[in-house]
Amino acid sequence: MKFKNIVAATLMLGLSTAALAQSIGKPEDQIRWRQSAYHTMAWNMGRIKANIEGTYNKDQVVQAANMIQAIANSGMGVLFQPGTDKGKGWKETRVKAELFSDKEGVGKVAKPYMEAANEMARVAASGDLAAIKTQFGKLGETCKGCHDKFRKED
Amino acid sequence: MKFKNIVAATLMLGLSTAALAQSIGKPEDQIRWRQSAYHTMAWNMGRIKANIEGTYNKDQVVQAANMIQAIANSGMGVLFQPGTDKGKGWKETRVKAELFSDKEGVGKVAKPYMEAANEMARVAASGDLAAIKTQFGKLGETCKGCHDKFRKED
Repeated sequence: MKFKNIVAATLMLGLSTAALAQSIGKPEDQIRWRQSAYHTMAWNMGRIKANIEGTYNKDQVVQAANMIQAIANSGMGVLFQPGTDKGKGWKETRVKAELFSDKEGVGKVAKPYMEAANEMARVAASGDLAAIKTQFGKLGETCKGCHDKFRKED
Repeated sequence: MKFKNIVAATLMLGLSTAALAQSIGKPEDQIRWRQSAYHTMAWNMGRIKANIEGTYNKDQVVQAANMIQAIANSGMGVLFQPGTDKGKGWKETRVKAELFSDKEGVGKVAKPYMEAANEMARVAASGDLAAIKTQFGKLGETCKGCHDKFRKED
C-alpha cells in the first residue's frame, strides 16, 4: 500500500494527521528506514539464493522468507511521504518521482510483490526445494518489476 | 543465536564452511546488513510507541510487531562473524569486542529478547492495548539489556 492509500485509510479510521506524522518520522528518517528495510530484504533474498545454489538448509530459508514476508506486509508505503522523492538517508534516495504520482502503477507492482512474498513464506515452510526455487524466481521478478519502474540506476 | 552457535549448528547439519560463507557476505556486508536490520527494528519499535502514546491502530501495531518478531527470529547472529568487531557498514560498527568472546553473556541477553519479541507479536494480534503497553515495556528492556552490555555509546 502506498502513502496515499495509507493516508486515506488512516483518515477514514479517524486518526489525526498528527498521530500519523508521529509514527513516520522526518523525511531523512523515512528514507533511512526504507533503505534499511530494503537492505534487510536484500540480505534475506541473498540467503535464499545461497541456499538454492549451495547447500539447502530449511531453517535458514524459513527465517529469510519470514523476514521478507514481514517487510512486504509492514505497510512501509507510509515511508514514502510527499517530499521524500529527494534526500539522503544512509545515502541519496534512488526513488523516482513517478512513484509519488502514479498510484495505479504502484499498485500494479506492489500487489504481486506482496502476494509473492506471502507465497514464498508458505513454500519455504513446506521445505519443497523445487517449489522454493520456482517461487524465489517469481518473487525476484516482482522486485525487478518495481525497480525497473520506480528506482533510478546507481 | 550468536555466530558461534550458528557456526556449530551449521557444521552439525553438514553444511560446508564455503556454503556458510556464501550466505553471510564480506565483513562490511555483515555490518551493513545488521545495521539495516537494527534500524528496521528501531523504526518498528517507534511505530508501536507512537501507537501507544498517540492514537492506537491495531493493524500498524501488528505490522510492526510481526517485523520485530521476524528480525528476532532471523538468525542474524550469523552476521557477527569473527573480524566484524571493527569496520564500517553504513557507519562504524558500535559492537563491543565482548560480544565475540562472552558466549554465555550473549545467550543471557538474546534469549529473553527473542521470547519478548514473540510475545509482542502475540499480544499485538490480541489487540489488547493495556497488554501491548506492558509487553512493549518488557521488550524495550531486553533491547536495553543487550545495548548496555554489548554496544558502545555513540
